[in-house]
Amino acid sequence: MLAQIISVGSELVEGKLIDTNSPYIASMLHEIGIDVARITAVGDDIEALSKTLKEALESSDIVILTGGLGPTHDDITREAIAITLGVKLVEHEETKERLLKRVAMSMGHVGMSSLKQALIPENAKPIPNPVGSAPGILVEHMGKLLIAMPGVPAEMKAMFEAYVLKELENRLGEKRTVVVSRTLKCVGVGESALGERISDLLTHLEGVSISSLVTTGEVWLRITAKAETKEQALHLVGSLEQRIRERASEFIYGVDDETLEGVVGRMMRERGWTMSVAESCTGGLVTDTLTNIPGSSTYVKGAVVAYTEEVKRNLLGVRDETLLSDGAVSERCAIEMAQGVRKLLHTNIGASVTGIAGPTGGTPDKPVGTVFIAVADENGCICEHYVFGGDRRTVKERACKALLNLVRKRLLQTP
Amino acid sequence: MLAQIISVGSELVEGKLIDTNSPYIASMLHEIGIDVARITAVGDDIEALSKTLKEALESSDIVILTGGLGPTHDDITREAIAITLGVKLVEHEETKERLLKRVAMSMGHVGMSSLKQALIPENAKPIPNPVGSAPGILVEHMGKLLIAMPGVPAEMKAMFEAYVLKELENRLGEKRTVVVSRTLKCVGVGESALGERISDLLTHLEGVSISSLVTTGEVWLRITAKAETKEQALHLVGSLEQRIRERASEFIYGVDDETLEGVVGRMMRERGWTMSVAESCTGGLVTDTLTNIPGSSTYVKGAVVAYTEEVKRNLLGVRDETLLSDGAVSERCAIEMAQGVRKLLHTNIGASVTGIAGPTGGTPDKPVGTVFIAVADENGCICEHYVFGGDRRTVKERACKALLNLVRKRLLQTP
Repeated sequence: MLAQIISVGSELVEGKLIDTNSPYIASMLHEIGIDVARITAVGDDIEALSKTLKEALESSDIVILTGGLGPTHDDITREAIAITLGVKLVEHEETKERLLKRVAMSMGHVGMSSLKQALIPENAKPIPNPVGSAPGILVEHMGKLLIAMPGVPAEMKAMFEAYVLKELENRLGEKRTVVVSRTLKCVGVGESALGERISDLLTHLEGVSISSLVTTGEVWLRITAKAETKEQALHLVGSLEQRIRERASEFIYGVDDETLEGVVGRMMRERGWTMSVAESCTGGLVTDTLTNIPGSSTYVKGAVVAYTEEVKRNLLGVRDETLLSDGAVSERCAIEMAQGVRKLLHTNIGASVTGIAGPTGGTPDKPVGTVFIAVADENGCICEHYVFGGDRRTVKERACKALLNLVRKRLLQTP
Repeated sequence: MLAQIISVGSELVEGKLIDTNSPYIASMLHEIGIDVARITAVGDDIEALSKTLKEALESSDIVILTGGLGPTHDDITREAIAITLGVKLVEHEETKERLLKRVAMSMGHVGMSSLKQALIPENAKPIPNPVGSAPGILVEHMGKLLIAMPGVPAEMKAMFEAYVLKELENRLGEKRTVVVSRTLKCVGVGESALGERISDLLTHLEGVSISSLVTTGEVWLRITAKAETKEQALHLVGSLEQRIRERASEFIYGVDDETLEGVVGRMMRERGWTMSVAESCTGGLVTDTLTNIPGSSTYVKGAVVAYTEEVKRNLLGVRDETLLSDGAVSERCAIEMAQGVRKLLHTNIGASVTGIAGPTGGTPDKPVGTVFIAVADENGCICEHYVFGGDRRTVKERACKALLNLVRKRLLQTP
């Protein structure tokens, strides 16, 4: 099975937007054993897209498009598909009704032109959009499969995972070689240090490979095995995972889709505990991250963003003496913030972070990137000190990861 | 002048690497008035690359390749160019000598296989590499220009800026056109409703075009003009911008690189005001966003994330009566939260958001996505009610944009 991916949008060929949809789709296809021959980006131009689409259909079994399905005049993917296949666009009744309802409910925010999104090529099926308004399109044409999805990454991903992936897996049927992957998610360690820990495992690998990916504050080790049966592939992955864990277990917080905030949430629930956060330099990012988990309201009671000394003092009870002698970016201040928010919001755990996100505000003693994090519970308070590199946002993100990891480590000690 | 860009590398079509080279080249070409018809990524496969290259040369004046110029067996760009053009690969003496020197000086770090990089197609010219070892390739073939550069972004950029850009500008000579773009950033309106407002402007455009791009909670209108001189292009952009502003000024918060939080920050500073935030369903995202702006500590004093009724009541002073009669997701609660945090943190403005981010917690009256936002100042309090679509994160992001926009609107009313 050979596939091609086409992304549509003038902002892509003008270099205004980096195409992240195609790499995502390519990696998903790669995992289920479908090779991608080519990834192409074209502008909002019916003729150029039709030509590209025709070439793709000639040399591949599957063509996946993203973008150009919206309601405006420069959304030309529907028309280009119809022209390429030589069919008409017809209105899909159910979709139209759903869109009309949206227009009515939107209090003027959604216009009637959104109804354009109910048009699909004859003999095509709409693919539901779990997140937005534009449906996708699925057409079979002379033994080839053509799938079009919206260009907004969140909509594309939701649609791909909910519908497209299953459709492709069904079609693969017996032709499928089994590829099994597992990602070990690590925090609190750099890529090279982690690489050295497991370097002896990297040679003489058969049927299985390791790749590493760095995201802000985390390193992901991805194990991939290919085999004839799922059991064989799972066995290959499992035994390599075990050997990695023997060397680096303290850094591995979870696997695959697990997130640090999700793991912390699960541990909080298991203990029936509650938590609160006092944030200075992260400005709310830690609590925002914690509350991305559905149901987090059962253990996150709230937070105080204390962006001035006045708020640290008045609301969190940080002592004048601490602010005068050690300053707001100090171990003592972090500890008093954690204890203060724990008391203020009556929670089992109080977590805090204070630091200098930059770009200004650094001193020789406390350069930009200096961060103190603390976690207080009924047994006391632990604190860690970091100096992170990177710009303002990167420092915020690294501080956030470090604090979530400190909460995780503290919870591990108190089962 | 029409160009195509081809990037070569199996890691691209396997989704392991995001192609940032092509967007960079595309934006550089766009600026000097060369249109990019298509961006393609192919794997390390001579046949696939030759086919793609042939198609590109047929329909474009300029083809720019990146990647596949290194010394290993999977670097196949040289061979593919030679095959496509029907010429031989020959050794470039000067390059070979330079590479030999490198091998000798490297104390074993550079192998003899690096000499492969001295091969170039007959009649081609090597392009010096200011940063690495692999030279680029420049060939003219039947009136077309073909340029190949290494795939390592730093090497590609250095080569492009030092040699390729000048080469292209020389060739453009008198044909050169000037392109000017401006992005109008809109909030508080959907893509289709905005499109309808300005639909009369979309026809009879000459030398200037409009495209729209949707990001969560925002719509960006991009105006692009092409002309012989910069003055003409600026004039075309300016006059279309003015006509768009006449129809939709209330939605336009900024241009180009401006952000909503940056605009709010500028307005706060101009007024010398301070603000605080009370967040429920956004869980800290609003304050996190506000504090991404360097220097935001001069106007953001802090925030309370009130994720339980207890915190809303005890810290923000939301009344029991309000929580009992209207509930925590209500206009009255939003108003009391905004007024409460304003009083608690002694700020000019208090902003609040309360709602149901989902996926559970919705009722027939208040479905998932229901959000109330409020902004309180010394003159009173304004409140807005929304029902947003999308998953948990999308609801949080849309609510955040809506609140920042409400702050902006309130500040506009109080100069």
